[in-house]
Amino acid sequence: MKSAERATAEGILFTDQYQLSMAQLYYRMGLHERLVQFDHFFRSYPDYGVHQAGYCVNAGLEWLLDWMRDAHFTDSDIAYLRGQRDRVGKPIFQDDFLIWLRKAGDFNGISLRAIPEGRVVHPDVPLTVVCGPFAMAQILETPLLNHLNFQTLIATKASRIRESTHGRTVLEFGLRRAQGKAANAGVRAALIGGADFSSNVGISHVLGYPPKGTHAHSMVQAFVALGEGELAAFRAYAEVYPDDCLLLVDTIDTLASGIPHAIQVFEELKRKGHHPVGIRLDSGDLAYLAIRAARMLDDAGFPDTAIVLSNELDELVIWQILTQIQRQAHEFGVEPDSVINRLVYGVGTRLITSAGDAALSGVYKLVAVHDGDEWKPALKVSDSPGKTLNPGYKHAWRLYDREGKATADLLGLADEHPAALDEIVLRHPFDPTLQRTLRRSDMSEIEPLHVDVLSEGQLVYDLPTIEDVRARRLADLDRLDFGVKRLVHPHVYHVSLTQKLWDLKQELIA
Amino acid sequence: MKSAERATAEGILFTDQYQLSMAQLYYRMGLHERLVQFDHFFRSYPDYGVHQAGYCVNAGLEWLLDWMRDAHFTDSDIAYLRGQRDRVGKPIFQDDFLIWLRKAGDFNGISLRAIPEGRVVHPDVPLTVVCGPFAMAQILETPLLNHLNFQTLIATKASRIRESTHGRTVLEFGLRRAQGKAANAGVRAALIGGADFSSNVGISHVLGYPPKGTHAHSMVQAFVALGEGELAAFRAYAEVYPDDCLLLVDTIDTLASGIPHAIQVFEELKRKGHHPVGIRLDSGDLAYLAIRAARMLDDAGFPDTAIVLSNELDELVIWQILTQIQRQAHEFGVEPDSVINRLVYGVGTRLITSAGDAALSGVYKLVAVHDGDEWKPALKVSDSPGKTLNPGYKHAWRLYDREGKATADLLGLADEHPAALDEIVLRHPFDPTLQRTLRRSDMSEIEPLHVDVLSEGQLVYDLPTIEDVRARRLADLDRLDFGVKRLVHPHVYHVSLTQKLWDLKQELIA
Repeated sequence: MKSAERATAEGILFTDQYQLSMAQLYYRMGLHERLVQFDHFFRSYPDYGVHQAGYCVNAGLEWLLDWMRDAHFTDSDIAYLRGQRDRVGKPIFQDDFLIWLRKAGDFNGISLRAIPEGRVVHPDVPLTVVCGPFAMAQILETPLLNHLNFQTLIATKASRIRESTHGRTVLEFGLRRAQGKAANAGVRAALIGGADFSSNVGISHVLGYPPKGTHAHSMVQAFVALGEGELAAFRAYAEVYPDDCLLLVDTIDTLASGIPHAIQVFEELKRKGHHPVGIRLDSGDLAYLAIRAARMLDDAGFPDTAIVLSNELDELVIWQILTQIQRQAHEFGVEPDSVINRLVYGVGTRLITSAGDAALSGVYKLVAVHDGDEWKPALKVSDSPGKTLNPGYKHAWRLYDREGKATADLLGLADEHPAALDEIVLRHPFDPTLQRTLRRSDMSEIEPLHVDVLSEGQLVYDLPTIEDVRARRLADLDRLDFGVKRLVHPHVYHVSLTQKLWDLKQELIA
Repeated sequence: MKSAERATAEGILFTDQYQLSMAQLYYRMGLHERLVQFDHFFRSYPDYGVHQAGYCVNAGLEWLLDWMRDAHFTDSDIAYLRGQRDRVGKPIFQDDFLIWLRKAGDFNGISLRAIPEGRVVHPDVPLTVVCGPFAMAQILETPLLNHLNFQTLIATKASRIRESTHGRTVLEFGLRRAQGKAANAGVRAALIGGADFSSNVGISHVLGYPPKGTHAHSMVQAFVALGEGELAAFRAYAEVYPDDCLLLVDTIDTLASGIPHAIQVFEELKRKGHHPVGIRLDSGDLAYLAIRAARMLDDAGFPDTAIVLSNELDELVIWQILTQIQRQAHEFGVEPDSVINRLVYGVGTRLITSAGDAALSGVYKLVAVHDGDEWKPALKVSDSPGKTLNPGYKHAWRLYDREGKATADLLGLADEHPAALDEIVLRHPFDPTLQRTLRRSDMSEIEPLHVDVLSEGQLVYDLPTIEDVRARRLADLDRLDFGVKRLVHPHVYHVSLTQKLWDLKQELIA
């Protein structure tokens, strides 16, 4: 795309055509400034085929707000819409609507509540609640989902990968296989979800994280092609980066050439007073090679050097690698933990694309329309009971048990105050036979999940730093049952309705 | 991301840190302006788990060229790099290198040959061959792969989806579930690969295609919440868009409410002299509902109205829907073809994310280094023979049999001329026992696959329109064996080496 076209393609027209068709219809019916509420939520956790998530990590809000602040209909956008024609050649959009759109077509009337970024979130709980004039709240649907679905998807995958590493460093390496420019949103989400750094230079700069990376096979190949060999390549690298010397050892033969050459260069560096950083393994049996490499580096007097692993890693591959090291290391006279504790993970394709389930099923559904003095709940029924909407103006709370663990998320109507009750009835969202009653005294906390973010377009929320968002994720994961965090077949976290919301839903369905 | 940060995050720093580390090393060794060649190719077709591609559709080149033309190191990029520190707090990049980078750090020295967009392509055949000064050709690796991997992935998926529809219209609906801004690159690729239109307004405008779309459930829900009902919603839509009236009929009950109401409104439109367009089905058993809808629309005198299907469609789901209609339509007294021929497919998530395999394994590998007067081939060996590079300065040809069908792609060295030979030996890329000999007289054409695109940064290629690219795809698909186009377990297309390239490869491995 030419840079001059970017404003058109990434501005307010970054939405679906039907949002504009509906906006004009609302204008024509006098409904365009009618206050409505939309809930944004996802229906199910990512399911990677042979494994599946038991929770998600919320992400994307700040970049959505950035987009909303800038988005408006420019003269050129309006001119384009004026030129659109229907099947018989008549203009699709009329002038009165376009004049209104040019003047009022921004998000300054939108109020927005949301669950903060970094928090652990679950299906059916509104992550974002949009309240605003019908036409603009409708146009917002597509860009809101675009921003929030992707970052939540990637933050979730990153959190799983982080969980699999026993807390070791995770480097995001996905730019080359990422979905175009979404690479940058993906890096932000990966950092929120658990990656520590990225190889992507520009976005690391913007987000204030130092980018990471050393060298590729091509450097070694070039020295070999010029008749100088791998050792010369490593020496050149050590000369230019004596205090950042991390060498990729698999260009020729990892055990017979790469590691011995690396050790030779490390010894030269050591004699000059530098601390070699480590090696990277990018092919072959990474668990076996990590054990052998650890042993060779130990024997050579470099027990503190890191071993970076890369090559199609994800949470299951890392889990397998760690399991193999735990079982196999002793064969080579190495303590498994001494290998595991020096590992660093470079995770590319499978993180940035959320391999196995490359989209989050986030939706944005009309739940209430303001009429006279009241909010009228809006419903959409479905043949699948799980897809029938939870209607109305709602709030959401998280209930913690006596040990401080999250035990359920509860959806109720806005005028309910579960914290004031002695007993709370938790209804399954659609199965009438499933309910349980919790006593207030069995709960350590009832926490409202939403914060006010926008009030009629004005930011009323202190945006946290990414470090704050990361800390919030860690705090939420600490309060999550271990079974829910399992990588495979996780325990199902409860999301429930209050009795009052359940009754309203049944009444509307009837 | 704030708009002011975009230039940083999407400019020349949209690359990996190690490319810059290596570039400085090449500078330090006096190799930064040494001419080198990199091949860009993919190693395997997308594999969607239960099904897999037998070919890819090449895409992304024009947007890569747009990016390359603008990319250079700004003062602010240089200032950022100057501030980077290594582990002991010393600057990573020195001033002499940064001064060179500010002055010469662009792609004006790059020459590039490529297979044109829209062409059917296969593993191991270089899609793009980059020749240029080592430092900048190295920095180009990541952004080149980012641009070309994603669009080729999506064009390939779109082509499969198109193949599954028996040539009916495919609408791209994926913006809400797309990977952030990559939605726009995805739309371009989807159009190249076989989608006819997109719902995404901005990028449709930029690319010159009218965006498509009508209304969502929310419109009907709002009328219902306000006590006016589905029929009133449909009437409102018909009033505002009398010649574009396509109604979503599943908000309440497709067969009992949606279709009867749509028919009622269509009759009203007809009396006023308008032609109703059709209905959209977005949930339930789409095959069964399409049959029932077709019958109801036929009986009401609207046999020409379209039935748009949407909801998690992909090539296998569409194949199943068509198979079910072929088997089930007669039960309802409908000719299967009369249903199938009125179908239109709205394909969202599973197209824009290439569901099942969300990344193409494209790589960019050093194959030759210029030294003195000659190109020295560069190799990278691997434990997996399939991943050992095909070295050297190469050309690629497509061989067509007497019937005009593509029978193999052939890689050879740049000084070879297979078209001049009476017999061509085709060697398997790594299995020494697999070879065959083709006589020139058995071939209708030997077609060079690459065109010159950039000559030292200058565009020497007439960029085709997207319509031209689409036509090229269709022409290539016509010349592709049907077995290779199968959706499941496709026949394997042959990619071979010339005897001379095979000999060079063996010599270098030894």
